[in-house]
Amino acid sequence: MRGLMMDWPLTITSMVDYAGRYHGTQEIVTRTIEGPIHRYTFADLRLRALKLGQALTTLGVGLGDRIGSLAFNTYRHLEMFHGVTGIGAVLHTVNPRLFPEQIVYIVEHAEDSWMFADLACWPIIEALADKLPGVKGWVVMTDRAHMPETKLANVHCYDDLIDGASGDFQWASFDENTAATMCYTSGTTGNPKGVVYSHRSIVLATFAASMGDVLGAAPKGGDVLMPISPFFHANGWMLPFTPCMTGNKMVLPGRSYEPEKLLELMNDEGVTVTAAVPTIWTMLMDYLDRTGKRPTSLTRVLIGGSAPSEGMLRKIELELGIEVYQGWGMTETSAIGTKGGLKPGAGNLPWEEQAALKMTQGRGAYGVEMRIVDDAGQVLPNDGEASGVLQVRGPWIASGYFKGEGGNPLSADGWLNTGDVARLRPDGYMVLTDRAKDVIKSGGEWISSIDLENTASSHPAVLEAAVIAAHHPKWDERPLLIVVLKQDASLTRDELLTWLAPRLAKWWLPDDVVFVDEIPHTATGKISKLTLRQQFRDHVLPTI
Amino acid sequence: MRGLMMDWPLTITSMVDYAGRYHGTQEIVTRTIEGPIHRYTFADLRLRALKLGQALTTLGVGLGDRIGSLAFNTYRHLEMFHGVTGIGAVLHTVNPRLFPEQIVYIVEHAEDSWMFADLACWPIIEALADKLPGVKGWVVMTDRAHMPETKLANVHCYDDLIDGASGDFQWASFDENTAATMCYTSGTTGNPKGVVYSHRSIVLATFAASMGDVLGAAPKGGDVLMPISPFFHANGWMLPFTPCMTGNKMVLPGRSYEPEKLLELMNDEGVTVTAAVPTIWTMLMDYLDRTGKRPTSLTRVLIGGSAPSEGMLRKIELELGIEVYQGWGMTETSAIGTKGGLKPGAGNLPWEEQAALKMTQGRGAYGVEMRIVDDAGQVLPNDGEASGVLQVRGPWIASGYFKGEGGNPLSADGWLNTGDVARLRPDGYMVLTDRAKDVIKSGGEWISSIDLENTASSHPAVLEAAVIAAHHPKWDERPLLIVVLKQDASLTRDELLTWLAPRLAKWWLPDDVVFVDEIPHTATGKISKLTLRQQFRDHVLPTI
Repeated sequence: MRGLMMDWPLTITSMVDYAGRYHGTQEIVTRTIEGPIHRYTFADLRLRALKLGQALTTLGVGLGDRIGSLAFNTYRHLEMFHGVTGIGAVLHTVNPRLFPEQIVYIVEHAEDSWMFADLACWPIIEALADKLPGVKGWVVMTDRAHMPETKLANVHCYDDLIDGASGDFQWASFDENTAATMCYTSGTTGNPKGVVYSHRSIVLATFAASMGDVLGAAPKGGDVLMPISPFFHANGWMLPFTPCMTGNKMVLPGRSYEPEKLLELMNDEGVTVTAAVPTIWTMLMDYLDRTGKRPTSLTRVLIGGSAPSEGMLRKIELELGIEVYQGWGMTETSAIGTKGGLKPGAGNLPWEEQAALKMTQGRGAYGVEMRIVDDAGQVLPNDGEASGVLQVRGPWIASGYFKGEGGNPLSADGWLNTGDVARLRPDGYMVLTDRAKDVIKSGGEWISSIDLENTASSHPAVLEAAVIAAHHPKWDERPLLIVVLKQDASLTRDELLTWLAPRLAKWWLPDDVVFVDEIPHTATGKISKLTLRQQFRDHVLPTI
Repeated sequence: MRGLMMDWPLTITSMVDYAGRYHGTQEIVTRTIEGPIHRYTFADLRLRALKLGQALTTLGVGLGDRIGSLAFNTYRHLEMFHGVTGIGAVLHTVNPRLFPEQIVYIVEHAEDSWMFADLACWPIIEALADKLPGVKGWVVMTDRAHMPETKLANVHCYDDLIDGASGDFQWASFDENTAATMCYTSGTTGNPKGVVYSHRSIVLATFAASMGDVLGAAPKGGDVLMPISPFFHANGWMLPFTPCMTGNKMVLPGRSYEPEKLLELMNDEGVTVTAAVPTIWTMLMDYLDRTGKRPTSLTRVLIGGSAPSEGMLRKIELELGIEVYQGWGMTETSAIGTKGGLKPGAGNLPWEEQAALKMTQGRGAYGVEMRIVDDAGQVLPNDGEASGVLQVRGPWIASGYFKGEGGNPLSADGWLNTGDVARLRPDGYMVLTDRAKDVIKSGGEWISSIDLENTASSHPAVLEAAVIAAHHPKWDERPLLIVVLKQDASLTRDELLTWLAPRLAKWWLPDDVVFVDEIPHTATGKISKLTLRQQFRDHVLPTI
């Protein structure tokens, strides 16, 4: 027996239409790439998105066509999230910080038919255009006055496209499972893989992100939201969509990530909630320390991407009086994996106990099922002790990658392997212990490379530390510690191991230490363990 | 091009499983029908719901079977919402306040295969059982000790069913559009009509109800929710589901609607949010006035079902310091039609201006599109001036009634006619002016019977007033005012009309006044205009 309810598809157009109609006068403020502060309303957003859809249709773009963007968080990029998807085309946000060859690879792989770039990213287009024969034309996301000189053919000015459209236009009609946006995973191993979000998955993840304890509109709706995390990371943690549903004022920083610029914009616009990676907070706190300045309206910060240190948490909460929500997610989970809000009642705990909860990777959110499994795929208990590969399932979790890249990523019973190793606590909190491919499997037991790195990094002479697995004849794998010393510091292998010994379980102690001048990093700033594993492939551990 | 996201059906089981796993220790407190306060957790709820599903399966209940309930808000009724729907059966909540013949009609029409009743409602079963030959068996929602003596055959004790199940049971798998619950509209005209909610519509409406400005978990999740509105009204305004998603403590009043009992439970359990019709508040405020007692933890009340008076709003907000959210919805909109929270920024307005917003029927919620149309079906502007029949569209709006009763209720372009007459303001607020069938159509213009009734009721000698349309040879319809005077009051037709004249537009002035001893009401306490229209079918208006 079926319900007798309307068949009303969950589409992004329904969110931007809602925003235009029900909080049309609410503001969206942007620090533009061109420089000045730009402000307009959700009604303006909707109208310009509609005009963009109309202009794209005139250019021949239709259902399923991929449109690439190389852009930071501005109102024009926001318009693309709604205007491109509203005609059933697919917005492919490309990370401008990737290496040029990676950008070429993913634009070609996605078969982007048009590329849009803001002025900050336009030089990338100029440099790569002749390697992208599949792209039919280029759009510079600026106005006529700021159009760059170019020798490229078929270059359009974004504002001219908008101004040339009448706005007398209807969104396309399509099934809610239609592709809406795409995002490639950075891929520390193998080729980058394209995650394809649907209209349905985005509406549902936006509902989840709008809940009070995930991100949430305050009861009076007075929260002002600043998405610092770029829209090209997992399509911006659903933040291009959430304010459309909740009606919150939105503040976009453009590409101005300098702490003084961020703080100025935050304070000028009364921002109450931001979302950013810890790096932003490291820079911002250093700036606050140096200048004595303070955020004047901020009440809540969402931290994701990687974990904040305890020092960061302490400082933000106790010195600045701002609440920290740590969340976990990945491109494959539409960024929304856990929620950072404390569980009911925990707000009354002493701060040190709250902090222990906040240092976890958050609580399960409705719509994301989590479990951990061992090497054989057996499900392990949620007892806070067992550590296993984290698998997830839900309506906004990827079921595969574009063009089948990387094969079927799902388990036989339909769960996605996240590649993270975690513990699941009985109270619902999740604690990441490592990336699955970085964990050291020593005699059937797992050693967390992250824990070893954190411990080694706390030695006063150590600037950076990395741990990888080295082959061991008896234990299969044993930890190899790779260290960069601080300038003018000196430390021997044995001194470091002696220092580490009381700080680690005996069987976790690295079998060897190698000192290097530099540890290789990926384009997104993470330690490239892939490169390290190649460099130290033939490393022979000392036998004791 | 399709998204590459998991096909994860939106089911009620996913909500109760989430509740059991992620806030398993959160409390659900019930004032039982048997008397004592009962408390247990969401983990208990999940386990007992699972056992109920298992027991029903053993009884032969399967996908699509209808299970009727005659019950107030208790943990056992809550378990039915999850246990019955979790095996793909359909929970049909029956309003025990309906007339016996209506109960017989809808139980037969829904073809309920089993009927559950709590001790308060069991006498209804005893009285009606022999008129319900289609029902295979009966379940008394109590424990063994409280089982009533009965001569009926095939009567089970609810707790025995639960205790007899091992809990080693899996929820059924089914499509998200599968029917989950049913609710009949009271039907002031024609036969009662069955609205059939789906798993998908309930999950989506629950998402909407969980948003900060609709109902909402507070950021720290500390809100304690008391659904006073019975679960059999539009399936309880989504409140049997919302706390499963948000993790809020839940307090259920059973059938104890007496103000002293409600207040005691509220204060004892730290209730911060309630949901109720205005009648409850009228009784409660009278009690507070008489006793000087006060709610000690309440911060927010949701009022729906009908509109609160301005006096009620003023008293709750200014005297008690509790915020009022007025929402509008109906059985056909899964109760969630508008949201009562003020729009962003409005919280800073002077109270009188906030009050003016709160006296509207609320703002549009994401997921419910609203429009107004004239008699010819032409869409009217959202200008706050035009008044027309309210139509709605969305994923939790009924597309028709069970067994096609009443024919296709949708417009040619797929909107549901609500039968309400409303104005839609440019700022997104909706104002109801009348029921479509009660509006007086005078010379092509509409006169609101509700406005006339409110004005007439404010005369000091008037106890109750009703206005219906009477036939008029020139204007088609003109208002006829029907009045019950207060005890010992005296008032003539001409005195009342003279008193009304300066208070109404000239053409709104009733053409006649009739004094009666009593105005007929429906089972749900509303004025029965159907009966009045029959009584005064032949009333001849005086000619001027």
